[in-house]
Amino acid sequence: MSGKSFDGVNPYLVREFARSALREDLGYQDVTTQACVDPNLVVEAKIWCKDPEVVVCGLDVAAEIFKVYDPNLEVVSAVAEGAYCSADRQAQRGDDLELVTIRGSARSVLAVERVVLNLMARMCGIATHTRALVAAMNTQDCQLLDTRKTMPMLKVFDKYAARVGGARNHRFGLSDGVLIKENHIAVCGGIAPAVRLARSRSPVSLKIEVEVGTVAECRQAYACGVDMIMLDNMTLSEMRSCVSMVGSGIPLEASGNITRQRIIEVAACGVDFISTSSMYKAPPADLSMLIGDDMGDIKNTT
Amino acid sequence: MSGKSFDGVNPYLVREFARSALREDLGYQDVTTQACVDPNLVVEAKIWCKDPEVVVCGLDVAAEIFKVYDPNLEVVSAVAEGAYCSADRQAQRGDDLELVTIRGSARSVLAVERVVLNLMARMCGIATHTRALVAAMNTQDCQLLDTRKTMPMLKVFDKYAARVGGARNHRFGLSDGVLIKENHIAVCGGIAPAVRLARSRSPVSLKIEVEVGTVAECRQAYACGVDMIMLDNMTLSEMRSCVSMVGSGIPLEASGNITRQRIIEVAACGVDFISTSSMYKAPPADLSMLIGDDMGDIKNTT
Amino acid sequence: MSGKSFDGVNPYLVREFARSALREDLGYQDVTTQACVDPNLVVEAKIWCKDPEVVVCGLDVAAEIFKVYDPNLEVVSAVAEGAYCSADRQAQRGDDLELVTIRGSARSVLAVERVVLNLMARMCGIATHTRALVAAMNTQDCQLLDTRKTMPMLKVFDKYAARVGGARNHRFGLSDGVLIKENHIAVCGGIAPAVRLARSRSPVSLKIEVEVGTVAECRQAYACGVDMIMLDNMTLSEMRSCVSMVGSGIPLEASGNITRQRIIEVAACGVDFISTSSMYKAPPADLSMLIGDDMGDIKNTT
Amino acid sequence: MSGKSFDGVNPYLVREFARSALREDLGYQDVTTQACVDPNLVVEAKIWCKDPEVVVCGLDVAAEIFKVYDPNLEVVSAVAEGAYCSADRQAQRGDDLELVTIRGSARSVLAVERVVLNLMARMCGIATHTRALVAAMNTQDCQLLDTRKTMPMLKVFDKYAARVGGARNHRFGLSDGVLIKENHIAVCGGIAPAVRLARSRSPVSLKIEVEVGTVAECRQAYACGVDMIMLDNMTLSEMRSCVSMVGSGIPLEASGNITRQRIIEVAACGVDFISTSSMYKAPPADLSMLIGDDMGDIKNTT
Amino acid sequence: MSGKSFDGVNPYLVREFARSALREDLGYQDVTTQACVDPNLVVEAKIWCKDPEVVVCGLDVAAEIFKVYDPNLEVVSAVAEGAYCSADRQAQRGDDLELVTIRGSARSVLAVERVVLNLMARMCGIATHTRALVAAMNTQDCQLLDTRKTMPMLKVFDKYAARVGGARNHRFGLSDGVLIKENHIAVCGGIAPAVRLARSRSPVSLKIEVEVGTVAECRQAYACGVDMIMLDNMTLSEMRSCVSMVGSGIPLEASGNITRQRIIEVAACGVDFISTSSMYKAPPADLSMLIGDDMGDIKNTT
Amino acid sequence: MSGKSFDGVNPYLVREFARSALREDLGYQDVTTQACVDPNLVVEAKIWCKDPEVVVCGLDVAAEIFKVYDPNLEVVSAVAEGAYCSADRQAQRGDDLELVTIRGSARSVLAVERVVLNLMARMCGIATHTRALVAAMNTQDCQLLDTRKTMPMLKVFDKYAARVGGARNHRFGLSDGVLIKENHIAVCGGIAPAVRLARSRSPVSLKIEVEVGTVAECRQAYACGVDMIMLDNMTLSEMRSCVSMVGSGIPLEASGNITRQRIIEVAACGVDFISTSSMYKAPPADLSMLIGDDMGDIKNTT
Repeated sequence: MSGKSFDGVNPYLVREFARSALREDLGYQDVTTQACVDPNLVVEAKIWCKDPEVVVCGLDVAAEIFKVYDPNLEVVSAVAEGAYCSADRQAQRGDDLELVTIRGSARSVLAVERVVLNLMARMCGIATHTRALVAAMNTQDCQLLDTRKTMPMLKVFDKYAARVGGARNHRFGLSDGVLIKENHIAVCGGIAPAVRLARSRSPVSLKIEVEVGTVAECRQAYACGVDMIMLDNMTLSEMRSCVSMVGSGIPLEASGNITRQRIIEVAACGVDFISTSSMYKAPPADLSMLIGDDMGDIKNTT
Repeated sequence: MSGKSFDGVNPYLVREFARSALREDLGYQDVTTQACVDPNLVVEAKIWCKDPEVVVCGLDVAAEIFKVYDPNLEVVSAVAEGAYCSADRQAQRGDDLELVTIRGSARSVLAVERVVLNLMARMCGIATHTRALVAAMNTQDCQLLDTRKTMPMLKVFDKYAARVGGARNHRFGLSDGVLIKENHIAVCGGIAPAVRLARSRSPVSLKIEVEVGTVAECRQAYACGVDMIMLDNMTLSEMRSCVSMVGSGIPLEASGNITRQRIIEVAACGVDFISTSSMYKAPPADLSMLIGDDMGDIKNTT
Repeated sequence: MSGKSFDGVNPYLVREFARSALREDLGYQDVTTQACVDPNLVVEAKIWCKDPEVVVCGLDVAAEIFKVYDPNLEVVSAVAEGAYCSADRQAQRGDDLELVTIRGSARSVLAVERVVLNLMARMCGIATHTRALVAAMNTQDCQLLDTRKTMPMLKVFDKYAARVGGARNHRFGLSDGVLIKENHIAVCGGIAPAVRLARSRSPVSLKIEVEVGTVAECRQAYACGVDMIMLDNMTLSEMRSCVSMVGSGIPLEASGNITRQRIIEVAACGVDFISTSSMYKAPPADLSMLIGDDMGDIKNTT
Repeated sequence: MSGKSFDGVNPYLVREFARSALREDLGYQDVTTQACVDPNLVVEAKIWCKDPEVVVCGLDVAAEIFKVYDPNLEVVSAVAEGAYCSADRQAQRGDDLELVTIRGSARSVLAVERVVLNLMARMCGIATHTRALVAAMNTQDCQLLDTRKTMPMLKVFDKYAARVGGARNHRFGLSDGVLIKENHIAVCGGIAPAVRLARSRSPVSLKIEVEVGTVAECRQAYACGVDMIMLDNMTLSEMRSCVSMVGSGIPLEASGNITRQRIIEVAACGVDFISTSSMYKAPPADLSMLIGDDMGDIKNTT
Repeated sequence: MSGKSFDGVNPYLVREFARSALREDLGYQDVTTQACVDPNLVVEAKIWCKDPEVVVCGLDVAAEIFKVYDPNLEVVSAVAEGAYCSADRQAQRGDDLELVTIRGSARSVLAVERVVLNLMARMCGIATHTRALVAAMNTQDCQLLDTRKTMPMLKVFDKYAARVGGARNHRFGLSDGVLIKENHIAVCGGIAPAVRLARSRSPVSLKIEVEVGTVAECRQAYACGVDMIMLDNMTLSEMRSCVSMVGSGIPLEASGNITRQRIIEVAACGVDFISTSSMYKAPPADLSMLIGDDMGDIKNTT
Repeated sequence: MSGKSFDGVNPYLVREFARSALREDLGYQDVTTQACVDPNLVVEAKIWCKDPEVVVCGLDVAAEIFKVYDPNLEVVSAVAEGAYCSADRQAQRGDDLELVTIRGSARSVLAVERVVLNLMARMCGIATHTRALVAAMNTQDCQLLDTRKTMPMLKVFDKYAARVGGARNHRFGLSDGVLIKENHIAVCGGIAPAVRLARSRSPVSLKIEVEVGTVAECRQAYACGVDMIMLDNMTLSEMRSCVSMVGSGIPLEASGNITRQRIIEVAACGVDFISTSSMYKAPPADLSMLIGDDMGDIKNTT
């Protein structure tokens, strides 16, 4: 693994995930495979996608997981990471899209199958949903952001998939962004004291963003000199008021109730960013693995 | 923690999850809270559910995660684990349902909030969806089963939530059930040789189940004396044929294309089990945490 | 490592064991080797068995442990996994049997020696004892089973060695088999209620087995429709009664007081399985490692 | 846990072992207990020893393992750590000896039972065998030593049990003692150069011991000024020659072929230490756990 | 532990550090204490500081480490976290300053002593050096920053100590701040393209800072609209030029060659921040632990 | 990695350190590199030392850390481990000394840079300081020792660097040496009872050393037959008295107040060892990494 293609997912995090997730699913051993499959059998398997359209995501991660279990497996991708594939594309079998070919020990391939499919299906689902939202925004002037509502233990994979889908990441966790929300404002006694504390005490490398619910709060936050403002659950009209008040001073982020239908209107309000966690609730892609070539034959090359 | 209520989720697995997930989300530290919130501030916070109906799931798990971070937090549930709550229930604020109250250090409460909400929202979502499917089956003669398509790293929580929703668990991973599928049959050269191998070599404590796609295959599997047969993607008519062939000999499991609409008809075919992974793709419940009582006041009790 | 030969011991479990066990034994460093042995010295070492007869077990596991420490070591087996070797076999030095040759850094070989010998001696001891029991049963109609009384932290190695010796595995741990024992029956108020609970709530992939101590209890359990019955500490006559009562309905397992002398009689009772944990108390094989060839010469090939 | 009674087993090592061993044996969950046992059921259980004589070992370790799983369990010992108990002792039921009482959640007690019994049976077995060897030596002038042939992953428990049995520990691993053995002497070209290297390069806190096989080698080692000499597999006569040569200069350790029969003669040779790994191959004590009081009643105190 | 006083050091990170560092230093066991110290002996110990002046740091961390090993230890601070203590202060013995009193098992206290002293000495050293630099700056208009040159594995403790000393933290690691340095500019072909990439692709919660070495480069970076500029190794005159060019537009950070002598002049240039890693190279404070009260008496309270 | 050059640092400890330290510094990802650097860009980077003189230390450790992150990186050393390099040496750029060249993915090189530099700078600093002390002793008759005051989590690297600098190691931790200090003597009621306990109970492979503060105490310790005595904070005259009393009987170790100025006089007193922890407080070497060759050009070889 060259560190080249993960594009922000540290390689040792992939390996660590692979070890933990394989241990979770395999437990003591794959009893069916151990009983039924000759240890010397070598096969070719393919991962197929049955969805009519998909943004491919997780190819290198999948390859790495297979290799953590068995370094002798060969894994070759049939499509490019981030490619948008619809039903009329090449590399298909019937209506299905070929994603990856794996060659090697049948036992190894079968043992790892489910972990790879479960993760990759989620990543493709996130990327596909994100791409659709970005397309729906229909503008270069506003970027789609994600949130911190990722699946526990899968944050780097979720965040990466959102990037592959065309979103830009908001903060990953609590340590890489100051976000002053309703609860903080309440305990500090207002926006101004909260911002003052954050400005004097938080790491200087981080922007200070405030979440506001009204135009009046937005004005207060702007007056405090924050770096970014999140407009939470505002109407289009309220958002337009905020945009005209702030001008090009600092970025504004629209948040809350961002649907695929409404997103083009929100983007048109003039905000710089629209954030949503909907990609992290998107259904997984429909992936499956089949051993053998298109005719289902087993290649026993040993 | 008494080991009493997790009901199958080993307590050290909850603690281990808490440590890993907190580390993932908090990273170096919660910069906002560290900057803005007085370390001596003590508050009361509540977790609310905004969904009109929900099967409550994860109360004890949530409490344990808060306590792993700060053993001095007090966590009290307002509802019972597994309770079905609809919009006209007690314990509400407006249309929202109160689930949990947490009292203690404001910093601790805010640091842990997102990890708890992300996990508990998923667990409630799974339990709620499962309960709806079980209700739709409208019978005591057929049990709903889940599958192994759980979220990586969350298997014990996913499986527990399905149980809370009323499903029974199928195997958790590859080591606690022999399931001979298409790929195994292919590499073994047929159902009979695959079953023969499994019967002589797999751990004796495990049932041997075979996945079949046709009535003819079902007949073969039954003739081999397997313990259970999975009818994969069969029509209602095919399933009825299998049921009448097998009689009360061994359990039959219907699998594939199990929708909420169709499930009552499938159950009526006479199969013993219906399995689906749809609960693991269910949308998370809509949960949020608010500091302060109903009026949003902060209780600084220090 | 191809995943090919471990035959049920997941490769990452071997690597994880190697790291933990090396850390336990090496501590800060191998002080003797670090002080006395030239870092450039390359040697050939052999692992010998001094026992007059042994079933060889752990060859691939040993090789993997050496390679986890130093990937440049070459490890070659002189015998086959599972081979029964007696004093008149080939590949010997005097009365000793050669098992493995290791070539590479003298420091690496010496650092890893003890961990490999300690584990492999146990695995050979288990396999050898198991093979003797299976031979003593002198039948194809009854299989030898192990139990869950494995050495903590070595379960997958113990269970694998029992398989190599010719036994079939009973459940590995508490999650891959329902075994209703004396304590469960007591707290449930009888066999019937315990079975009823297990049948409605445990994962469907698992057989339900009940441990009984009398013929009457066996009759109760059979009437409940369980999948398997363990006859605990019964006389031969009692076991024969159970066998004739159950017929070919479900498998019966004889357990308790299984000695090498008595095992042929137990097997002749008609039970399907005989279980024992005696292989896990078997003495380890007598293994040692010597550097140099048969004449004890050191090969400094650098 | 006060750190008071483990007497050399660091408390965090016990907790870490408990987590790993519980995870190994429980896997996903204890399916039988989860299905059959009421989560609110509180019981009293006792651990009994069936052996006619035993040196009790592992009481505090057992208590700690129970508490790692469920801090609410109460664990009380009926005997003292290190006590020698024979069949005519108090605190018995029939011929069995009561060791420990556990009170609390039935589910917790049953889930942890096997891990505790497997470890404690090994520790009692080691301590009992060691005590017998020490008694057989019948002298204060010679101490029994153990070796490094402990069970992988159980070193601190094995070593502690040997101490409880009356032995003194030899080095634990490769970093806490310089032991120049046959292989080191071979690669260094003799005893003298090996000792010279060790004396100038190993940590100064460690003794330098040399393993010798003949009286002549013992003379060489003594002339080099080493701190201790191991007499490996010598005859009684050879050992006496070494003793008279070395006088009270440095300690001598007899090693190899140390049987219970021969040990009194070896001790009488005048060596300072006798080392053996036989206690680490001793059979485990015969322990079992029963729920309920002497009459087997279940105490449902909830 | 209430999460109250660590002030940004997550409690589970302290516990994890304690386990790892204790394991590193104790290895198998504390052999001296195990041999010499009665397990029932209870003592009172005090940690003293011999330095004439010190900023106290690490009190709660020290207490937590003691308690991870032995929860029964009582730990009481004699001074306040962050207090500046000079030789004429109270709470002294001769010229030494009392920091902490620990009461409990003598064995536990002695086992943990060195790990606590090594960490706390480093933390006090960092805080003391930082306080001196902040005092030397002699201004409220410029804040002292640290860097990422922390000790591996001690980052959160190092960063916390710098805060206690009065510094504000720069980014902790590579994920919580975009810092475009010489190497990035080189591979991107200039400041402008590097900033353009960062602005479109990095998480939005992070400021974008550029490191520049000349006034011209500063002008380029400012023109790109970055959030902050690091003036690396500039003369006072160059820094003043940058300040007058940028005005109050964005923060400027002076870096490189920041000595205690020169720092007041650098601060007077008008930069907003001065960053240095010198606190992370500061000598540790001179701490020691003594058992017994001022007269060295042992309090055996058992 | 061949295990060949680490010379006492176990290879899996290096890999484990690499994973932990990279995770600490990289967090979620290297945001700057991920945004700005082409994933296909391949570069050559060099690590330079700016100090006028340095003892090179950590070359193989550095290479291993780079490879843990990205196995495709090539790492070549320009100097030899342990070499003393002064400003007039070869392999320089201006006044800087070239230590290492790394070739491979620009992203990988930049991600790992800081972890490697931080560790290697510490190791070079320790080795350089140690070498200077050894040179100042100006004798073969007395060896320099280190202490246990290493940086938590870096013990094996610190200890190794001291060896590279020419020191011999004292015990690493609490389990590989019996050192009876002031606190132990106090709780045992004197030197003699403390030694008696240690001699009968500690592992036999360990020397027993006593720390004494006066000539009278030294006499007591010597009379007890200990293996080594530490003379703590004695005057030169006191140390000479101890040396003449003990003669060549057992080694004496001078400790406390060991400065570079005084060390030659202490060595001349006739003690066998001088111990100090000053090398572990030495300032780190001044290392930096630059991408590109001497002219700073980027080699984009893809």
